Amino acid sequence: MGLALRWARAGETIILGSRDAQRAQQAAEEIRKKAGAGANITGMENSAACAASDLLVLTVPFEGQATLLKQLKTAIRPGSVLIDATVPLAAGVGGRASRTLGVWQGSAAQQAAELVPKGVSVAAAFHNLSADLLNSEQSNGDDSLDCDVIVCSDDPAATQLTRALAAKIPGVRAIDGGKLENARILEQITALLIGLNIRHKGHGGIRITGLPPQAYE
Amino acid sequence: MGLALRWARAGETIILGSRDAQRAQQAAEEIRKKAGAGANITGMENSAACAASDLLVLTVPFEGQATLLKQLKTAIRPGSVLIDATVPLAAGVGGRASRTLGVWQGSAAQQAAELVPKGVSVAAAFHNLSADLLNSEQSNGDDSLDCDVIVCSDDPAATQLTRALAAKIPGVRAIDGGKLENARILEQITALLIGLNIRHKGHGGIRITGLPPQAYE
Repeated sequence: MGLALRWARAGETIILGSRDAQRAQQAAEEIRKKAGAGANITGMENSAACAASDLLVLTVPFEGQATLLKQLKTAIRPGSVLIDATVPLAAGVGGRASRTLGVWQGSAAQQAAELVPKGVSVAAAFHNLSADLLNSEQSNGDDSLDCDVIVCSDDPAATQLTRALAAKIPGVRAIDGGKLENARILEQITALLIGLNIRHKGHGGIRITGLPPQAYE
Repeated sequence: MGLALRWARAGETIILGSRDAQRAQQAAEEIRKKAGAGANITGMENSAACAASDLLVLTVPFEGQATLLKQLKTAIRPGSVLIDATVPLAAGVGGRASRTLGVWQGSAAQQAAELVPKGVSVAAAFHNLSADLLNSEQSNGDDSLDCDVIVCSDDPAATQLTRALAAKIPGVRAIDGGKLENARILEQITALLIGLNIRHKGHGGIRITGLPPQAYE
């Protein structure tokens, strides 16, 4: 919801996907209330949303990721890019949200890459943005995020597309983090941040320091 | 070397350990040249260094960590604290420095905890500070580091001691990262930063954003 709100504000055309088309439409209306009447946002059942899109952002709990991707295999358009933000939190199987599960493929993003149709590129990103901060309603304050987004993909074009999308969120710098296999580290950083949030009652994010300016552009 | 330099400048009493006492003494002299004649730094063979210390900082390649800790088991004083900064990089077995090895105990720090004598607390920290930046000789510029140190330990006293030591490095904020098991994430962040450094030609570090001020104090 927070990502959709930010991209709606940035003028992107957005389709929210849900198992239930009506719920998706309701969610789209909620976002329109925040983003303004001109927001280009609608809601559809997941398969219809995939069929209508060439850039997909998957933000589901890990325990639902594989099943959903299998269901959507025929709906996802070849040539599209799927951005995966899934984190394999142990909370998904009754464990702690500050711990991760081991994923056979190495990361949830690599599991996604195995499950999408041929010709679909996967990028991993957006794991570490606080939902609370993305949804923040500080109408007077500065609602920019103090957080970087690291993007990992085996397809340089998917990395560039994802970085451009990340940079549309005020405050966010998008950094090329290399191959998709590195997503395992991004996913675990989320568990670390959740642990820090519980311990310190915050909305933790990360900034990468010490890289040359062009790495952040 | 960089950590010793920073702590020598902060007025700490430092003993460098090495397999070879003479090499340790030479390294201590090198640091004294940078830190000033008043620096309280000496060099000793590893066992002697352990016997003379109550706070140990282990900064060795992963492939030497377990062997060294077994050798030093009788030399490490009960009641002392061992800060482990070991990162299980795949480079240690001929792989890439941007990848890590799986460690049976969960992390190199937990392996260390298994190998120290009873009564010795282990804290994990300092994995992600750039050696180049720690050793930086910018005599006119600001040589503070733009990086946070996350400290993980099962012993709150060891966490506090380690945080206090980290805070002696200009620019560094020390954050309680919870239990020692979380060290696995700190270790992997180093591999991510090494990958970013290779890709972007930088000296990457991390800052944790979004926590309340007391988390950084």
